[in-house]
Amino acid sequence: MLRIAVLGVGRIGRMHAENIAAHPRAALAGVFDVYAPAAEEVSEKLGVTRFESAEAVFASAEVDAVLIATSTATHADLLEQAVAAGKPALCEKPIDLSLSRVNACATKIAGSPIPIMLGFVRRFDSGHAAVRRAIADGRIGDLHQVVITSRDPGMAPAAYIEASGGIFRDMTIHDFDMARFILGEDVTEVCATGSRLVDPELMARCNDYDTITAVLTTASGKQAIISNSRRAVYGYDQRVEAFGSAGMAISENRTLDQMRLYGAEFTHRAAPLKNFFIDRYHDAFAAEIGAFVDAVEQGHQPPVGFEDGRQALILAEAAIRSAAEGRSIKTSDIG
Amino acid sequence: MLRIAVLGVGRIGRMHAENIAAHPRAALAGVFDVYAPAAEEVSEKLGVTRFESAEAVFASAEVDAVLIATSTATHADLLEQAVAAGKPALCEKPIDLSLSRVNACATKIAGSPIPIMLGFVRRFDSGHAAVRRAIADGRIGDLHQVVITSRDPGMAPAAYIEASGGIFRDMTIHDFDMARFILGEDVTEVCATGSRLVDPELMARCNDYDTITAVLTTASGKQAIISNSRRAVYGYDQRVEAFGSAGMAISENRTLDQMRLYGAEFTHRAAPLKNFFIDRYHDAFAAEIGAFVDAVEQGHQPPVGFEDGRQALILAEAAIRSAAEGRSIKTSDIG
Amino acid sequence: MLRIAVLGVGRIGRMHAENIAAHPRAALAGVFDVYAPAAEEVSEKLGVTRFESAEAVFASAEVDAVLIATSTATHADLLEQAVAAGKPALCEKPIDLSLSRVNACATKIAGSPIPIMLGFVRRFDSGHAAVRRAIADGRIGDLHQVVITSRDPGMAPAAYIEASGGIFRDMTIHDFDMARFILGEDVTEVCATGSRLVDPELMARCNDYDTITAVLTTASGKQAIISNSRRAVYGYDQRVEAFGSAGMAISENRTLDQMRLYGAEFTHRAAPLKNFFIDRYHDAFAAEIGAFVDAVEQGHQPPVGFEDGRQALILAEAAIRSAAEGRSIKTSDIG
Amino acid sequence: MLRIAVLGVGRIGRMHAENIAAHPRAALAGVFDVYAPAAEEVSEKLGVTRFESAEAVFASAEVDAVLIATSTATHADLLEQAVAAGKPALCEKPIDLSLSRVNACATKIAGSPIPIMLGFVRRFDSGHAAVRRAIADGRIGDLHQVVITSRDPGMAPAAYIEASGGIFRDMTIHDFDMARFILGEDVTEVCATGSRLVDPELMARCNDYDTITAVLTTASGKQAIISNSRRAVYGYDQRVEAFGSAGMAISENRTLDQMRLYGAEFTHRAAPLKNFFIDRYHDAFAAEIGAFVDAVEQGHQPPVGFEDGRQALILAEAAIRSAAEGRSIKTSDIG
Repeated sequence: MLRIAVLGVGRIGRMHAENIAAHPRAALAGVFDVYAPAAEEVSEKLGVTRFESAEAVFASAEVDAVLIATSTATHADLLEQAVAAGKPALCEKPIDLSLSRVNACATKIAGSPIPIMLGFVRRFDSGHAAVRRAIADGRIGDLHQVVITSRDPGMAPAAYIEASGGIFRDMTIHDFDMARFILGEDVTEVCATGSRLVDPELMARCNDYDTITAVLTTASGKQAIISNSRRAVYGYDQRVEAFGSAGMAISENRTLDQMRLYGAEFTHRAAPLKNFFIDRYHDAFAAEIGAFVDAVEQGHQPPVGFEDGRQALILAEAAIRSAAEGRSIKTSDIG
Repeated sequence: MLRIAVLGVGRIGRMHAENIAAHPRAALAGVFDVYAPAAEEVSEKLGVTRFESAEAVFASAEVDAVLIATSTATHADLLEQAVAAGKPALCEKPIDLSLSRVNACATKIAGSPIPIMLGFVRRFDSGHAAVRRAIADGRIGDLHQVVITSRDPGMAPAAYIEASGGIFRDMTIHDFDMARFILGEDVTEVCATGSRLVDPELMARCNDYDTITAVLTTASGKQAIISNSRRAVYGYDQRVEAFGSAGMAISENRTLDQMRLYGAEFTHRAAPLKNFFIDRYHDAFAAEIGAFVDAVEQGHQPPVGFEDGRQALILAEAAIRSAAEGRSIKTSDIG
Repeated sequence: MLRIAVLGVGRIGRMHAENIAAHPRAALAGVFDVYAPAAEEVSEKLGVTRFESAEAVFASAEVDAVLIATSTATHADLLEQAVAAGKPALCEKPIDLSLSRVNACATKIAGSPIPIMLGFVRRFDSGHAAVRRAIADGRIGDLHQVVITSRDPGMAPAAYIEASGGIFRDMTIHDFDMARFILGEDVTEVCATGSRLVDPELMARCNDYDTITAVLTTASGKQAIISNSRRAVYGYDQRVEAFGSAGMAISENRTLDQMRLYGAEFTHRAAPLKNFFIDRYHDAFAAEIGAFVDAVEQGHQPPVGFEDGRQALILAEAAIRSAAEGRSIKTSDIG
Repeated sequence: MLRIAVLGVGRIGRMHAENIAAHPRAALAGVFDVYAPAAEEVSEKLGVTRFESAEAVFASAEVDAVLIATSTATHADLLEQAVAAGKPALCEKPIDLSLSRVNACATKIAGSPIPIMLGFVRRFDSGHAAVRRAIADGRIGDLHQVVITSRDPGMAPAAYIEASGGIFRDMTIHDFDMARFILGEDVTEVCATGSRLVDPELMARCNDYDTITAVLTTASGKQAIISNSRRAVYGYDQRVEAFGSAGMAISENRTLDQMRLYGAEFTHRAAPLKNFFIDRYHDAFAAEIGAFVDAVEQGHQPPVGFEDGRQALILAEAAIRSAAEGRSIKTSDIG
């Protein structure tokens, strides 16, 4: 049993705490949150220790590893502390909104054998992972194009958007990682376009976009196309398509149930899509914990690491610049 | 070019006339209808001869073969005349509503080499035929169960229902033939159930049903399940499922177009099903003409013949008796 | 928190124990199994009491309710003990293989206010339940036909089959309950057909069938069609279709993941179906526990009770007789 | 009956000739081809006049209108002759590979009331047209993103590719028109990326691409994403997705038949996609003829005209430049 403490028990941290408690090979070693009532509630409900500080967590002999789900600005510091304390860490994305902070963190932890895993949970979705596996098994031949559709079911609150670092760093970052996961090859160029269609006023105020397209290219000419919207009324739209010389693999959406309705005006009508990430990626979040436990217990590097977090951020930086300048940006010009 | 004359140019005969005219290896040799204005209209529109009588058609040296689409009561007589005249015939189903008349006709034409084909058009549907082919190719192993769903988009006019011979002889007859086509083996027992749910009053008056289920069994224990309704508001429901020891093949419905709509309350919403048989089986009707031309030109027996028409009627008789008596009926007790 | 003890921790009892432990409003009060090592393993893994006997469970002040997942022959006795002890019970199906034993049990517990719930888990499946809701909401108008397809992914071991009471009591019983759930109206007549196609030798030895069709009729003429096979190589086939005067609702199958593959020979190729009931009905089993907790806590009768178990068995008896005698059986002639 | 002569009876011209002959309100007035044997074969098969020259066609009093399906280089000349002769024309795309030639032609025919229609057949596909209609009816709210997937089933012969004018002018031109059709608003900016993945050698020799992505933006920020490949092994991939503030409409692919196969390793397996344009857009080609006949007979402008052909070419020019320069190109900088 790997004893994992959770740092930060907001919506996502709390879910992670429950998943750890339910995992057959993991145990919840306790929780910490700067907002004590949140930690108290979770510690009581799940019957585990509430730590008084992050330092107390890192110092505890009862904690084998940590899951970092605090606010973004603290991720890099906590990762550095985790490495210093010799505690393997599973850290929510992004590492930081600033690439230079990420690079500084990378320098600091370089050479450490402590496993660091990034929470790009979508890699653990059964459908998306099956697409990756189909490619790895040669079932679609050489990969030519990847099409990632990723649309949130509804706009986040203005306060969230304002602090998010912008759509590319906050939302598309998952798709940048997915593109890298599926492409299996470094992206060399990014061309992005942003529009303000869902909430033009808020977007203008934040100098942000709510509707974007990004086209990524690799050295060998593989293309990945990402389309995002901050609001899809029909639910959480999450599709991945991989097109190759010998076929295509598509990871399809998930509806709320499998019922289809027929009437005088229509056929095959299904329920809206699962909404939101905690439902849609429910099984993937559990699988993510499992992958972290495996990596720590078997002493190998996690399937998605710090450098994956850094590379996704580089793509976000390139996309931001591309959308602003109306031209393709080479990733070698970033970072 | 096989020169085919069409006898009877109501809705279905007219469609056949157009299909023959459009077929690359067939020519429309003329039309006849007891209601002269109907024949006149078609003959003018398609620029072909209007014959004054069925006899004139059979006597004509310009006619190589005939398509019989007259009213049911005349089919057997016209088939006998066709055989006597040495003209191959494609005859709409059913041969007759009376099994004894069919048997008498069978006796009369027995031994004749003139090709007689029955218009069980569904055998020529690309989806249903693909199911049959999947079985023949061994792709689903040994066949165990067949499930045929067949629901009309709307109740026919009362006058039609009254003269139809009842749902089993009029509507299920297509499904009985489909069951035989898919089973590839003689049906030995029939168990049927009928209800009056769509138009109870009309059904009671006609001593008929509008909603039926029939279960057919073969000597080896294969089962075929047919469900019919006279009215499906979502369109013409036409599905065939074959389940076997190594898999399953399903011929799915056809929607009016391939557009799917997503909204706040639903996803994957498609158009109603194609409606009605002239649209749904459009390509199958053309393929049926092709199969008839092939059989006549190449001198082999058509893929669906007089005996298939007779066997389907035997199943209808068995079903009628089963529904009335509340017990399974052996087909050997019929006819 | 409702403290529930589990009696019988074979495959299904163990799953129930884990579901209870994971349920937010339930607690696992302990386990018992006549085979002590099984109970020991589960009690250790989940950190709960192992009871020495069923009597000890019923006597315990720490137990609010019980879940009965022991062998079928013990169900009726344990239900009677539960009622005597005043412990609400959730009991796996069937109550007993013998209708007279079920009737005796019914007499014994008659009048007791203790909630008894039957484990017809499929009622809690999101898709099947959505079909029921669509009917209740009037979205398909008056119900005319129900089509239930239910095929196991593989034949159970011979020893299981031999003791099962036959396919109608063991397997179709779920579909009889589903038919009643969807029909919302008493079945008055049953017509069933059985074949030996998957393992003819074993079936002959057990005087049983592996492939069956059953047609149920209600007083108003509604029809329910059930088709079962003991082995579907493509996975656990579980579909429910409800056809009505204003539309149709279909609960579709579940594939292992949502990935679709395209190649030179095919398109839309998906993974096999979920296999087996613990996976397919994973969420339904959890919802079932929730419904039991709700009923007990809120003091109302559970959504599926003892009488539902008895009625399903009556349909099984009618089907057995129908298949043997080749005629429809009135349910009023049973029991 | 509108009497239409066909100029050019290669593969596509011949299909048009047959469609005209089969159309209820059109008649085939004759054919012409610079390669006399081709014209002879078609004229014999369809029983119509073979004209000796284009001039003879334009001079004939038996010809009400023309369909131009000759080689691309002759389109503009023939259009000018048609206008001069007062014959409405339906012209295959593109008008010319050179935008300046197209502009010169535009100047020459400016002001003429003679109906000129461009053969962007996909606008007449029932699925794509239903997407457009869903937008027009407000069913998906304000349009935000359009995703067009368009992949040919196989690489054209090298000789064809060499003379094609490049993928953007030859293949993507259809998708540029589709984007304009769906967007319903002028494209202001184009950003395109091209790769050589299917046949790198041939593409390098022709300075062409076989795999492209193009992102189009309108003044209001709507985005259209086009992905093309010269070879999809699973068939002719033709999808159109429109995403808006209130929903989404998707025009799905067409499989060869509607049969689905299930086996031990898979479920829902369908046939390959229809292949190629003459099959996939069979009904659309017929509808296109109908729209042309309507426009001429009712004296209104055709639904897709000369200017649509010119605008699609402008987008192609912009894409070519964008792919070469690695930056967005404003359409106002073209032409």
